[in-house]
Amino acid sequence: MEQRISLVTLGVADVSRARAFYERLGWRGQEVEETVFFQAGGLALVLWGRDKLAEDAGVADGGGGFGGVALAQNVRSQAEVDEVLAVAADAGAEVTRPARATFYGGYAGCFTDPDGHVWEIAWNPGFPLADDGTLTLPDFGTP
Amino acid sequence: MEQRISLVTLGVADVSRARAFYERLGWRGQEVEETVFFQAGGLALVLWGRDKLAEDAGVADGGGGFGGVALAQNVRSQAEVDEVLAVAADAGAEVTRPARATFYGGYAGCFTDPDGHVWEIAWNPGFPLADDGTLTLPDFGTP
Repeated sequence: MEQRISLVTLGVADVSRARAFYERLGWRGQEVEETVFFQAGGLALVLWGRDKLAEDAGVADGGGGFGGVALAQNVRSQAEVDEVLAVAADAGAEVTRPARATFYGGYAGCFTDPDGHVWEIAWNPGFPLADDGTLTLPDFGTP
Repeated sequence: MEQRISLVTLGVADVSRARAFYERLGWRGQEVEETVFFQAGGLALVLWGRDKLAEDAGVADGGGGFGGVALAQNVRSQAEVDEVLAVAADAGAEVTRPARATFYGGYAGCFTDPDGHVWEIAWNPGFPLADDGTLTLPDFGTP
């Protein structure tokens, strides 16, 4: 199996509400058959009905709450962390962890989208970001 | 907020067990402070203790089950869908939806990793994949 991800699909209660939230963050997507696709670098973020997603995957849906997955966007400065968290809060996100210094010498905060999906916004000087936003892990020198 | 994802972090019960599973799929990562980082195209897939992830994000953890998120890897042929699902099953995954034709003219199946995280493996002739595996959404002609 190749080492890559093509799509990240977020199950949502109301596709229109979820799309409106991401559009207030400035994202622009396309909707096809009650599914919204956002190009996000070399992959796509997708919004789809949570019930349909569970059924399609062949799994039972316990019904909500934290699902053990967090998305992160690394940005280029501490100030940009604050800016993005403010935009998200204005768009209706809940800031679940206000921005603060991190143990790795960075700065980060978290919000949840209207369906409870976690986003961390982080400035991490140890994880290089290219101009196009692609992230390259450093060589940690560990196996 | 820029339209991209830097990290996808999967909360897991046992980092070593989870890492072993992904290594059996052929993935290679680095471990730093009980966190495993896999370069996955222009972003990173991260394995981290689910309890730490919830605490770090400032959210309560209802305790498991489907979390309303699915990852997908698009591959280049129907045969490759079957191959990857077989590799995953051999590695201990549960195939929750055997591969079958999809309504969009493709072919896809799903498995869950040892912590219940959903992966769909799909061949979708309508979503172009570059040689390096980056996916570019088509123009659906819809807003």
